[in-house]
This record gives sequence, structure tokens and C-alpha cells, in this order.
Amino acid sequence: MDESEKLHKKLRGKIRVTSTTEVTKDTLAMVYTPGVGTISSIIAKQPERASELTWKSKTVAIVSDGSAVLGLGNIGPLGALPVMEGKAILFREFAGLNGVPIVLSTQDPEEIIRTCVAIAPGFGGINLEDIKAPECFYIEAQLKKLLDIPVFHDDQHGTAIVCLAGLINALRVSGKNPKNLRVVLSGVGAAGVAIARLLKLQFPEAHITAVDSTGILSATRPKLDGSKRSLLQENIIDGSKDGDLSDALHGCDVFIGVSKGGILSKVLIRSMNKDPIIFAMANPDPEILPAEAHSAGAAIVATGRSDFPNQLNNALVFPGLFKGALANDVHNITDEHKLFVANAIADSVAEPTAEHIIPSIFQENLSDIIAATFA
Amino acid sequence: MDESEKLHKKLRGKIRVTSTTEVTKDTLAMVYTPGVGTISSIIAKQPERASELTWKSKTVAIVSDGSAVLGLGNIGPLGALPVMEGKAILFREFAGLNGVPIVLSTQDPEEIIRTCVAIAPGFGGINLEDIKAPECFYIEAQLKKLLDIPVFHDDQHGTAIVCLAGLINALRVSGKNPKNLRVVLSGVGAAGVAIARLLKLQFPEAHITAVDSTGILSATRPKLDGSKRSLLQENIIDGSKDGDLSDALHGCDVFIGVSKGGILSKVLIRSMNKDPIIFAMANPDPEILPAEAHSAGAAIVATGRSDFPNQLNNALVFPGLFKGALANDVHNITDEHKLFVANAIADSVAEPTAEHIIPSIFQENLSDIIAATFA
Repeated sequence: MDESEKLHKKLRGKIRVTSTTEVTKDTLAMVYTPGVGTISSIIAKQPERASELTWKSKTVAIVSDGSAVLGLGNIGPLGALPVMEGKAILFREFAGLNGVPIVLSTQDPEEIIRTCVAIAPGFGGINLEDIKAPECFYIEAQLKKLLDIPVFHDDQHGTAIVCLAGLINALRVSGKNPKNLRVVLSGVGAAGVAIARLLKLQFPEAHITAVDSTGILSATRPKLDGSKRSLLQENIIDGSKDGDLSDALHGCDVFIGVSKGGILSKVLIRSMNKDPIIFAMANPDPEILPAEAHSAGAAIVATGRSDFPNQLNNALVFPGLFKGALANDVHNITDEHKLFVANAIADSVAEPTAEHIIPSIFQENLSDIIAATFA
Repeated sequence: MDESEKLHKKLRGKIRVTSTTEVTKDTLAMVYTPGVGTISSIIAKQPERASELTWKSKTVAIVSDGSAVLGLGNIGPLGALPVMEGKAILFREFAGLNGVPIVLSTQDPEEIIRTCVAIAPGFGGINLEDIKAPECFYIEAQLKKLLDIPVFHDDQHGTAIVCLAGLINALRVSGKNPKNLRVVLSGVGAAGVAIARLLKLQFPEAHITAVDSTGILSATRPKLDGSKRSLLQENIIDGSKDGDLSDALHGCDVFIGVSKGGILSKVLIRSMNKDPIIFAMANPDPEILPAEAHSAGAAIVATGRSDFPNQLNNALVFPGLFKGALANDVHNITDEHKLFVANAIADSVAEPTAEHIIPSIFQENLSDIIAATFA
């Protein structure tokens, strides 16, 4: 049995719900019957006061259907639950928020939407998690329309924000000019699509080629799903070239992988421009290990892992992001918010170096710095 | 501003979600990525191990549509939220369980059922709360069929159990014979229907007359809803007599009110048999105040309130009941369980007296005594 299993067995639940006040006969008469009747009456007349008199404005539902869990794929709701509990810990630890795991017995997009709408009144925000593409795009878009609380699919936007933050500092460190930047994106699922969109907003002149398991997303590819096709139609990625990953990488400056462990090789890195930037974000096995990438000439390497320098993990983002949105009554997290957050994270590294383009999740005040962008 | 409002404003949420382990770089690598991957993999292969590796088996969803909140009626989900938070406090304090308030934007029974089924995987049980009759009967019955975790509508069964527990001891104290007992039940909503059914199971020879706002539930009454009609059809209540509350009470031994404040008078009590038992459980205003009832000859009086002796409150029941069901992997709470729990609560009062027919919710080990009935 490994250490993680031992700890989980010991804890039997990584989170718990506790009272914020001591329970005595006197307090109980206030927080439960009969005193709670006053509070219910007040809120019945002035629903907006729920944010001041209940836990709603500090509480985020972490909703998953278990269809795309970590690197494990579609393992269903129970398999997803430990991850959601872990996220709840991060919400508490880094943002002082309540994260409530909600794992679903359905993977039907309409049912997921309906369920989120049904449970929304008790929550200040909804963090969608580990829901597979392309369903996740539709689910999030619909919920943003239907609900008046922030809805944020972390696998998309959390990853995109932390990736952009890392890239901003990687460009600062390397001195590369964002205007002529050539980027290859490997993996065009939930994270890949969001990364392409956010990068293009920050660096409109950068040139992005996207590659999935079939090859380059080119204008001639048949049967692309809607989310991939829209990247071409909106000129976010360049679809003028056909080919595979090696065709895409030749003469490029940046590799961003949200795809599959081990698919990047030293030979491929050597075909890139001088001093390339390698973000090998596949979890738990990156597209290439940092030592290998460096030995092939990579100037800056980042992964999703905590055991290498430059950990690009969305845990850096979502606690502060929800903290800011909830504290400032922001009902809709926009592209502008995401850009502000990415830049705030990048700027929070006082002196970025090749081994320190991104803050640690333990960096003091990080969530406050992020939250402040919503004020 | 009253004390309760002051406290709620200070707390801004009566409950919170916290980590059960200290958060360090090392523990984080176990409870979140990468270590959590091992746990998710284990559960994906052996779903039953979720009860040992996650919070599921200690966690109850407290679900309400806000259609019947306390004495306030249909005030909607946000008005219900403070009550659900209060229940979550009781779950923690008296049973060591996590209660998670889930308040719904829908009051459609099918949508409520669908939502509970959708969110069920992450919970060990579902406590339905403050959902109006007759919808609550259908919702609970369907969920019991559809889910493999305990589903318990507290307004029905929690109230019925605590009422029966009180009656068992009231009969012990008064020496009345349950065989010839004549009971009048005032109020035939969620609680009333459940009380009638549970009383008849414990005391099959007792004679129960039920009265709602229209009068006695008699066999000649047209347009009775299904839950009321079934009480007649199953001979749980006697429908041979027509009339109103005063016709019903004449010559009776026990009044059980789950109806409306102030509807019982001294004159009516005087028309009952000698030394009547009065359970005036309407909240927050009982059907008659204890002092008045006693002055009209009542031998034993109980209410739902904490400021009078003999508080019949379902808070006595649900923490221990879920604790027992969850700890013993009981997937379906049966009538037998309810009878066992009611009798265990009654028996937990070592020497019942007219002013002490029911334990205090602070009575040591009460939830363990209740939970033990599930072992």
C-alpha cells in the first residue's frame, strides 16, 4: 500500500463539514429552531441577504461527471470523488472558501446542466471539473447563460490561465518577441482549446499550430468537432499546413503539451528554433522529462508536476479566482478576467528565471493577488 | 436586530468545509496530484472502496425545495438554506457526520427526484427536508426505489419517531392502556400521515381519528388526496365519524397536533377523557400553551419548543439515525428501524415523569443509542 492510500484510509474523507460556532443550548436556539425562523423570514423577503446570512457567498460546488479524470479518463463519479475532495482542500487552504464535491450519476450534458441549475441556489459559484471535451464546452456555455453565479470549467480555463502566466514569464526570461512567436499546441481537448484562445488574446500576433492525435488541425481536415473547427474559423490557429507533430514543430519557438506522456522527443526538440520553450503539461507523465528536454537544447521547461521546477498547475489559479469573483459579486468570469489573472500571476514572480517562471502554490498572498484583479 | 440575526451576520455561514489533514507540500502531493491518482484508480476498479477512501460514507445531503419551511410555508430555496445549515450543525455535533445543504431551484417532483439521483454518488444518504405534502410522499417513495443509499424525509419520519417515543413514555407515566387508547391527530400533512402510520404499527389496537383544516377525515369526505385516502383504506385511521375537531376530541385520551398554533382550547381539553395527554407540536406556536393545557386538566403536555419541558423535536432523531444507517451500511430505512429507534429513545429516559417523557438532545450518547439499533 502506498503512502497516499495509507493516508486516505486513515482519514476516511479528506474534508469535513463543521460548525463555525460553538454549539450550546443558547447558540442552538439561534442557529436552529426557533431562532433560524427569523433568518429564513428575512431571506424570504430579501433574497439578496442570503449572501450575508448564509454560507452561499463563500461556497463553491465542485461538479464532475467523472468522464475525464486526471490521466485516467472516464472512470465515473466515485473515482472522481477523491480529486474533488482534494480540490475542496485547496479552496479552504488557499482561499478560505468551502468547496463541496458534487459527483454525478449522469454524463448526459442536458442532465448535467439541469442538475447544476437545480442545485445552484445554495452555491456562490460552480467549478466544473474533469468533464470531457467536447461536452464540457456546451455544458459550460449553457450554464453561463442560465445561471447568475460564476461558472468555471477549471480544466479549460484554469489550465489556460496558468499556461499563459508561465509563457508570459518564459518570454520575459528568454527575451523572445511575442510578435513573431511560433507556438505548437499538442492536444486539443478541454485544456488545449482554452489555451489556444487565451494565448491568442494575449498575443494576437503569435502564430499557433494545433496538433491532435490525428495530426495538425488543418483547414482540409474532415470531421473536426465544433470546438476544434471554431479555432480555425476564428483564425485562432493556423490551418494552412497539413502534417503531424514533427511537421508542426519544425522552426517553432514554443511547445505546449496537454496531450500524452512521452510524445515529445529530443529529435523533435532539436528541429525547433534555438532555445525553445517546452511546456510538457501532460499528467502525471509529461510529454518529455525536463532533463531530456534540456539535454536537447530546451531553454525553459515546465511541467504539471510538483517534483520538477516550474509547476504549471491550475491549483495556482482557481482558489484565488473564485475568491475574487465571490468577494466582488462577479457573476460572469470573462476573458478579460482570465487575462488579468494570468498577468497577475506572472507579475507575482519578482524576478523570473528559467527555473522560476511561475510562483509556487504556497507563495504567500497569491490568492489575494489573484482575487484583487476582480476588485 | 435580534440576537439570532446578529449571530448569523457575524458568522456569514454557520458551517464550513475544512481539511481533515494538515496541508503541507508533502500531504498535498498525496491528497491532490499526483497521489490522488492512485486513489481514483483504486475506486475506479473497486467502487465499494469509496466508503473507505472518501467522505461518502460520512456525508448526508440535506435536500430541500423550500416549499414547507418551518412554520413559514413556501419561501423557496434561499429561505430554506439557513435551516439546512442548522441541520448540518446538528449532524456534525451529535453524529460526527457531514451535512451538506442542497437547496433547489425547482419544486417539480420529477425534477427533484432527478436531481437527487444525479448527485447521489457522492453521498452516503439523503435527508429530504421541508418539502410540502403530498409531493413529499411521492418524491421519497421514488427515491427509495431508485437509490441504494438511505433516503429519509425528516419532516415525516423524524417527527413520527420522536412523537412515538414521547407517547410510549407518556403512556408509561400515565398508566394508560395502549389497547383502548383513543388518539386524535390534528394535521394530516407530511408529519401527520407518518405519525398515524407509525403509531398504528406500535399500537395496532389504538383508535386514531385524524382531523385536517376541513374536519374529520371520514369515509364520506370527497376529494381526499392519495396519502390521506390511504390512511382510511388501510384502516390506520377510523373514518366512521364525521365532524370537526371538537367532535373528534370528545372522549379521547391523546391529542397530537402537527397543525396550527392556538387551535386547541381549554374547553376542548375538558371534553376529553380524564388526564389527557397533549402533544401540541406546531412550531413555533403550539396548538395550546402548556400552562393553559395543564390548567384544563392535561396530565402530560409536550411541544416542539426548547423553552418548555418535553421538547419533541426531530433533532433528537436524525443525527443518530443516519449515523447508525451509514455505519452499518443500511441502504433502506424501514418501518422496523423507525420503531426500534422510537423505542430506544423512549427507553433512554431512565425514569420518565410527566415533565420528562423525552431525552434532551444534549443527553450523552443519545445518537449512539439510536445508532446501535441499526447494528
